[in-house]
Amino acid sequence: MLLHLDSSANRSDESVTRQLTRLFADGWQAVHGSDGYRYRDLAADPVQPIDTAYCQLGRRSERCGVLPPAQVCTLIENAAEAEAWAVTRPLIDEVVASRTILIGAPMYNYSVPASLKAWIDRVTFPGAFTLEATEVVVITSRGGAYGPGTPREGWDYELPYLRAYFADHGLPDSNLRIISAELSLASLVPHLADLRPLAERSLAAARAEVLSCVEPRENATAEH
Amino acid sequence: MLLHLDSSANRSDESVTRQLTRLFADGWQAVHGSDGYRYRDLAADPVQPIDTAYCQLGRRSERCGVLPPAQVCTLIENAAEAEAWAVTRPLIDEVVASRTILIGAPMYNYSVPASLKAWIDRVTFPGAFTLEATEVVVITSRGGAYGPGTPREGWDYELPYLRAYFADHGLPDSNLRIISAELSLASLVPHLADLRPLAERSLAAARAEVLSCVEPRENATAEH
Repeated sequence: MLLHLDSSANRSDESVTRQLTRLFADGWQAVHGSDGYRYRDLAADPVQPIDTAYCQLGRRSERCGVLPPAQVCTLIENAAEAEAWAVTRPLIDEVVASRTILIGAPMYNYSVPASLKAWIDRVTFPGAFTLEATEVVVITSRGGAYGPGTPREGWDYELPYLRAYFADHGLPDSNLRIISAELSLASLVPHLADLRPLAERSLAAARAEVLSCVEPRENATAEH
Repeated sequence: MLLHLDSSANRSDESVTRQLTRLFADGWQAVHGSDGYRYRDLAADPVQPIDTAYCQLGRRSERCGVLPPAQVCTLIENAAEAEAWAVTRPLIDEVVASRTILIGAPMYNYSVPASLKAWIDRVTFPGAFTLEATEVVVITSRGGAYGPGTPREGWDYELPYLRAYFADHGLPDSNLRIISAELSLASLVPHLADLRPLAERSLAAARAEVLSCVEPRENATAEH
């Protein structure tokens, strides 16, 4: 299964991450069909914020040595906790069922969009999942450039964060693919006009990398 | 003015950050009175997620060389943008009017709670504010310990992130105070029981630091 998450607040055609995740998702479906494709627009359909009941149920599970998701229902003590778990469990099941998780995540204020963090805060129930056999593809865009040697090197709290978060949930580093389109502000802001060729090259490279991820390979098995 | 933000999803008495921000807010009001006190519970009353109209209005402002908040209304082109700005402007005005911003921010999944990021993503409209004359007090709690020499050193994407974000908005480093209570999981999880004395010491130190921030000083002016 491919779980495709978009988190750009901009739902218009202007969104670079939405363009790129769509390119990936279309290519994936051309190979694997649409039965295993699951889409979640975290901006259009926000994940409900976690609440007191969610926290209390999570702490109870930690006190019990962390129960697997199928047994968490045995810990529920009131209607609010039942409701919190009813919202959470399907999102966890989606993660567990996924062979690949595709995440569109523009950098907002040096970090992930709030809508993506809301999903992370909800699905990361104690003991909910491990990603040892999962592939994660993060597609990001950012207004500036944050690579080594740029003036903003060290200001990226998005990609190193996601790398740490997923590693902590068992994702092997080799199963994490990050595709980044930089300098998206260059096409908008007059004083960054000089950077437009660099921005265009970055976007073209990101598109090519997306296509290389999903193009059918000869002799590849169809097990994904 | 003191702007007090809480972002813990746990609205019960168990929330360490809520206990500590309350201690700060009570002390502040004992000195300064309650007229200048403004409270916002980002969990109980979530900031509306930013949307396409917000992004498009923000980009237009950037294309125009970034307008001050009072002039952004001249850029509005449709009802959705008017609505986006109507939600955003009061939150920006609150920041601008504040002498001190107090933020209760437990670490969730190595970063800020989604509810706090939603506030950040909303108030950080291009050119909205600078914090050169503001004081920011961040009160955090975390399940583990993330200081130098701990096994989780380098996993903190919360405090270094907030430090970078506020610095980028003009906050002098000397105007940022961070108060941290660590190892809150120790009191909950049996296998961390050995760490309880350390956790208690950390919480007591955090309480003392909060009180030292707000206790009336002799010869202090009342201008805050």
